[in-house]
Amino acid sequence: MRTLAAATCISLLATAVLADPLPSWNTGETKSAIISFVEAVTDPASEDYVTPADRIAVFDNDGTLWAEKPVYFQIFFAMDMVKKMEESELTSDALKAAAAGDIEALLATGKEGLLEVLAASHTGMSVVEFKESVAAWLESAVHPTTGMPYTAMVYQPMLELLSYLRDEDFATYIVSGGGIDFIRVISEDAYNIPVSQVVGSSLVSEYFDDSGTPMLMKTPDLFFNDDKAGKPVAINHHIGKRPIFAAGNSDGDFQMLEWTTSRDGPSFGLYVHHTDAEREFAYDRDSHVGRLVRGLDEGPGRGWLIVDMATDWATVWPTE
Amino acid sequence: MRTLAAATCISLLATAVLADPLPSWNTGETKSAIISFVEAVTDPASEDYVTPADRIAVFDNDGTLWAEKPVYFQIFFAMDMVKKMEESELTSDALKAAAAGDIEALLATGKEGLLEVLAASHTGMSVVEFKESVAAWLESAVHPTTGMPYTAMVYQPMLELLSYLRDEDFATYIVSGGGIDFIRVISEDAYNIPVSQVVGSSLVSEYFDDSGTPMLMKTPDLFFNDDKAGKPVAINHHIGKRPIFAAGNSDGDFQMLEWTTSRDGPSFGLYVHHTDAEREFAYDRDSHVGRLVRGLDEGPGRGWLIVDMATDWATVWPTE
Repeated sequence: MRTLAAATCISLLATAVLADPLPSWNTGETKSAIISFVEAVTDPASEDYVTPADRIAVFDNDGTLWAEKPVYFQIFFAMDMVKKMEESELTSDALKAAAAGDIEALLATGKEGLLEVLAASHTGMSVVEFKESVAAWLESAVHPTTGMPYTAMVYQPMLELLSYLRDEDFATYIVSGGGIDFIRVISEDAYNIPVSQVVGSSLVSEYFDDSGTPMLMKTPDLFFNDDKAGKPVAINHHIGKRPIFAAGNSDGDFQMLEWTTSRDGPSFGLYVHHTDAEREFAYDRDSHVGRLVRGLDEGPGRGWLIVDMATDWATVWPTE
Repeated sequence: MRTLAAATCISLLATAVLADPLPSWNTGETKSAIISFVEAVTDPASEDYVTPADRIAVFDNDGTLWAEKPVYFQIFFAMDMVKKMEESELTSDALKAAAAGDIEALLATGKEGLLEVLAASHTGMSVVEFKESVAAWLESAVHPTTGMPYTAMVYQPMLELLSYLRDEDFATYIVSGGGIDFIRVISEDAYNIPVSQVVGSSLVSEYFDDSGTPMLMKTPDLFFNDDKAGKPVAINHHIGKRPIFAAGNSDGDFQMLEWTTSRDGPSFGLYVHHTDAEREFAYDRDSHVGRLVRGLDEGPGRGWLIVDMATDWATVWPTE
């Protein structure tokens, strides 16, 4: 009997270990809060039960699913594209700074300079050509300080969270201030999120069929800025339902979390707080990317979970 | 043995009947063409095989999935909402015509008059309130000539086609010139299409949280006109992939079919041709709604299937 009891114990332990949906999250209140919420909304006997069709989860991308320091990776892409331009085409300080790989000088040219660099690298080509250029870049580009490929700088705990939610019949969406066409190049391989579930900022596309070969051309005009109050608008436009789970990391995500957590019925708002200078980057109130002020001030009072990256995450990168 | 053979024959016949995925389509070239295409793209041994993730099918709504005569049903909704306004609020010929239920007089006020009626019935309220007003209207409103509820005026053969494609692992989307918020009220019940798979025209929504209760308000400004060249643009924006199957009924769908059928690899373009004045409505080249000229002239040469409603459809309405 002792042998049987021991075997049972080992079996139970094994099941518990195997059943941990978030192995890269340290045991504690943060992990428990996530699991308690998911268990409540998926338990038909719970008063917080939510039908699978309404289990919508939305995730910011930069700084929430993958890193965003020292600047958004899409900017590194843009700079690398500008580096390929002829010197005679570098007609402004912004383009010259980008071609020289000088981030500080580029940022000093302000929003207009940044838009000029984005226009030079993102427009005047078809959507297909643009996606091909992003895919080709990702094949060889590496992050300037970590030396890692950009697609390796996704957060292992967040991959587990996405997977856990999908296993519990959530639909997982990306709702990003970054470019929709850019993120769609990585969404399936990096996050297992289909391109139709990527919502982002976008430029106006124009349909041409003059040549007999129809194509969609990317123009420099902004179509939609999927940031701040734009996020709930885009969620409604694209998904057509109010999410029950939202995760972000900056004040650009505030309204998305607010919209999600002010619904009738159960909801969950989560902020990834970048507190880990050793394994990743530490920044919040004073950062020029991923600035988080209002979220830290108001989030806890609104019942939002603030994830402390340094203490809540056992690992950061999938390769650890 | 004869008994066994007879039993086998009956069994085979029964299977054949049960297996007909399109029972409301008459046997003939049209039905065969659809089935042949679906069998080819779903057969792993076929050179035309398409992986399930790429089996995207897009359908226009008005005149393709449900009727659109004498005018789009959304206009009847708008007119019925205007009828509820105070007489002092009817400050234009368009509003007066709408309140009087005079379609001809309303159409005579042109596009601007129509936009005024749409603004009066569709804006200055939240998205939730708008959807509730549509749902309440659909409960009791009936079509002026058939006396049928509007949601009963969906096409049974097209419901079967949607269902057949989904059974074969296609994702079915609505891509309509009609309003996205309007169609989302009916898409699940009428077509079994989730609201996230509805693409349509839309007004600008604004996010407000001033009152402490965040909401999305509908403004009168046009955000996107999902018609003609707008359809491929919206498909790319919303779905992020090029469809392999497209169905429409008017020249407003031309570019959607063109975009779909000019992809590399197998594709299918289908036009519903309204030829049945007895059971539905007969119209094409001279109609002010659902005008079909270029599609009839160029469609067959492009290999698109023209569905003759009068001869190809055994039934039109689900209630037949």
